[in-house]
Amino acid sequence: MSDYDVIIIGGGPGGYLAAERLGHAGMRVLLAEADTVGGTCLNVGCIPTKSLLHSAKTYRHALDGAMFGVNVTGVQADWSAMQAWKAKTVGTLVGGVQANLRRLGVTIVHEHARVVGAGRVEVAGSVHKADHVIVATGSEPVMPPIPGADGRVVDSTGLLAVEVIPERLVVIGGGVIGVEFASLFAALGSQVDVVELLPEILPFMDTDIASRVRAGIEGVTFHLGCRVESLDGEPGSTTVRFTDADGSEQALTADTVLMAVGRRPRIADSGAAEAGLDLVRGAIRVDDTMRTNLPGVWAVGDVTGRSLLAHAAYRMAEIATANILSLGRVPPGERLREDTIPWAVYAIPESAGVGLSESQAEARGLDVTSAVVPLYLSGRFVAENGVGAPGAVKLVAETGSRVVRGIHMLGTYAPEMIWGAVSVLENELTIDDLRQIVFPHPTVSEGIREASWAIFS
Amino acid sequence: MSDYDVIIIGGGPGGYLAAERLGHAGMRVLLAEADTVGGTCLNVGCIPTKSLLHSAKTYRHALDGAMFGVNVTGVQADWSAMQAWKAKTVGTLVGGVQANLRRLGVTIVHEHARVVGAGRVEVAGSVHKADHVIVATGSEPVMPPIPGADGRVVDSTGLLAVEVIPERLVVIGGGVIGVEFASLFAALGSQVDVVELLPEILPFMDTDIASRVRAGIEGVTFHLGCRVESLDGEPGSTTVRFTDADGSEQALTADTVLMAVGRRPRIADSGAAEAGLDLVRGAIRVDDTMRTNLPGVWAVGDVTGRSLLAHAAYRMAEIATANILSLGRVPPGERLREDTIPWAVYAIPESAGVGLSESQAEARGLDVTSAVVPLYLSGRFVAENGVGAPGAVKLVAETGSRVVRGIHMLGTYAPEMIWGAVSVLENELTIDDLRQIVFPHPTVSEGIREASWAIFS
Repeated sequence: MSDYDVIIIGGGPGGYLAAERLGHAGMRVLLAEADTVGGTCLNVGCIPTKSLLHSAKTYRHALDGAMFGVNVTGVQADWSAMQAWKAKTVGTLVGGVQANLRRLGVTIVHEHARVVGAGRVEVAGSVHKADHVIVATGSEPVMPPIPGADGRVVDSTGLLAVEVIPERLVVIGGGVIGVEFASLFAALGSQVDVVELLPEILPFMDTDIASRVRAGIEGVTFHLGCRVESLDGEPGSTTVRFTDADGSEQALTADTVLMAVGRRPRIADSGAAEAGLDLVRGAIRVDDTMRTNLPGVWAVGDVTGRSLLAHAAYRMAEIATANILSLGRVPPGERLREDTIPWAVYAIPESAGVGLSESQAEARGLDVTSAVVPLYLSGRFVAENGVGAPGAVKLVAETGSRVVRGIHMLGTYAPEMIWGAVSVLENELTIDDLRQIVFPHPTVSEGIREASWAIFS
Repeated sequence: MSDYDVIIIGGGPGGYLAAERLGHAGMRVLLAEADTVGGTCLNVGCIPTKSLLHSAKTYRHALDGAMFGVNVTGVQADWSAMQAWKAKTVGTLVGGVQANLRRLGVTIVHEHARVVGAGRVEVAGSVHKADHVIVATGSEPVMPPIPGADGRVVDSTGLLAVEVIPERLVVIGGGVIGVEFASLFAALGSQVDVVELLPEILPFMDTDIASRVRAGIEGVTFHLGCRVESLDGEPGSTTVRFTDADGSEQALTADTVLMAVGRRPRIADSGAAEAGLDLVRGAIRVDDTMRTNLPGVWAVGDVTGRSLLAHAAYRMAEIATANILSLGRVPPGERLREDTIPWAVYAIPESAGVGLSESQAEARGLDVTSAVVPLYLSGRFVAENGVGAPGAVKLVAETGSRVVRGIHMLGTYAPEMIWGAVSVLENELTIDDLRQIVFPHPTVSEGIREASWAIFS
């Protein structure tokens, strides 16, 4: 007999959500997490950065209040208080997840675990048996072997923990993590440079929107198409040497350097390779129901390489658990649909999107039409930001069928309104259907409505 | 021959949007607006209140910044600067609407107009002919004949224009307008009382949510189930006398009293009755395609009494114009669906909703199940507000089919995320469909996701 119905390796968003769903269904679940429940996202990722970014936004609003009739004197960013609020937020949420797991009867062990075969997991030296195993070991920062980088850079976890706001920060990498930290510290007064290898930041975005995000972030100098060659210097005064897009050698000196060139699935200690799990590009290969090649072994979240976003891990966990609970039949819709996973970037200004960018659609051979409208068409946006503030909505739709294939936004509230766009895409609405959705007035979300009337007009 | 294809009476959201759509389609359009284009909403309604509420929120954020590590030594609300920003916002938006109408070839006359029959409108003494007439005269505040009220109360337009922040404000009426103004001035430091006849404020809301809105608004004392009997006193010191829910006589004295008991369709000067338009409960009767009883005469917006919301006026204008342009055939979906018109209240805290409340569903004989979840289940909500802040999501779904019938929310960003709920309702998604929509993490919108898992659990 099995010791558990399901053993889950890793207590991040993918792992803890699977444990919650399975525990709720009455299954005997063991969750093995060597560190703190909540994983990267809750402890050193999404949540702490959003907490600090909220502090930074509050600071900027206080500084910029006079425009709206709020006169403020003596505005001061108290980094240690911001850190304390962040720690309190993380503590509250970790406590909430733990309490919920306990309430649902999930057994949590704070031990390293690794899969050793179908139905078998080694935890702290002993092998436990289960009908199902879910591998949810997450991801870790990539540290490229750039000469001199070792000891001179911090990763995102290190930057979250700095004791003072850096005076000069260089960020290597213009992806989500790099851009959010750049925006955070620029808002708090740091002098910030971002060095990015590609010709544009945030490469998953429609370039129309990415370039507007870049232009909209105040206080950050972006160096695009630049290859970092080496780092040197003393602690607190590190020089980053890079070749710019013209082939010239450039250098930037900073007290703090963030390495944020990407993350990779955490495979090494997971046992995956030794247990015979198929790997693809350094990730555990799964089908659209999260099954690996071994019977009863599933993988969800970053370790699958299918998407490195916390909410994608949630979705994968739901798909895996729905399939586990349905005993072999695929429940309706319980397959991974990567085109309807949204993204959000919480820089100042915020942005979000879902579906295909124009170039992605064209790469698939789709005939698409697009429209970009400025957010100053929204009365609320103008009332809260002024006409000149960065804000835009881009729609991408198939030219013949007029089916919406992508909705991309830059501007306040974008991450909060994008779930509606997910609904539009999941339901394969046409532009004509979208035009019939009533948006409350006045909202910034009306920018989507305006775009629906601007396209095919 | 007709002088115009379409004559539109009234330049508010219903009228100007119809003019834009018809002008864009190449029609010869006359828009008659006695006052400023934009109507109540843009000039003295939604937009100016949202501008002032944004100022008030900025003020509160500055005062409360220490929690997030933002220390300030002095914060001052500069009412005249708030008013100046409001005026600039309104001016910008009115200018934008006017410029767009001109670009689309719409003829604007700033004259009073009234319908005199099918295809005939009198403008400043002359009768113009048109194939179609759209009546969009809007609404006006109800001023009930309470003894002593005359000269002692202001309406919303008057309160927007006060020269100083009232020290003591009494609001008669706990609908959207009353609650937004109460919250605005309470946030700016006024002592505010709201006197409401009904047992709960915001009667269109699910009472679960309405009572939480009421509890969440700081600095306002609500007097429920109270009938105002009379007003007396001097300018600047008015006493409002009312009978409370227990039948006792009460009195409140304030420097400013807002009368906000509702609005009614503006019929009197529209010519509607004289031209033979059917009226119902003081509004122009229209069918679901916005047709009145007279051929070629349409009515949209508040004057129909179907909904007194600006975005409902937009939708009615789109339905009317789609039907006008389709020459008799009803274009797919171009009918008014009142159950999918969202509402939003921009108090502090904000709230929004769409679809049926639990009690509305039960009144229709539907067997429904509901769930309410607190927003502290959202990591972003906790990071930005703390666990104790007011926030909740309520879902209402049919018990058998599990079709979602209502989504109601209290908390930050609610008005911006509710359009997604409109999409859910328009597509008649079930709870199981809703659970498959991926919400970006971390967002407050995930509260909707949490509710979808709490219901039928």
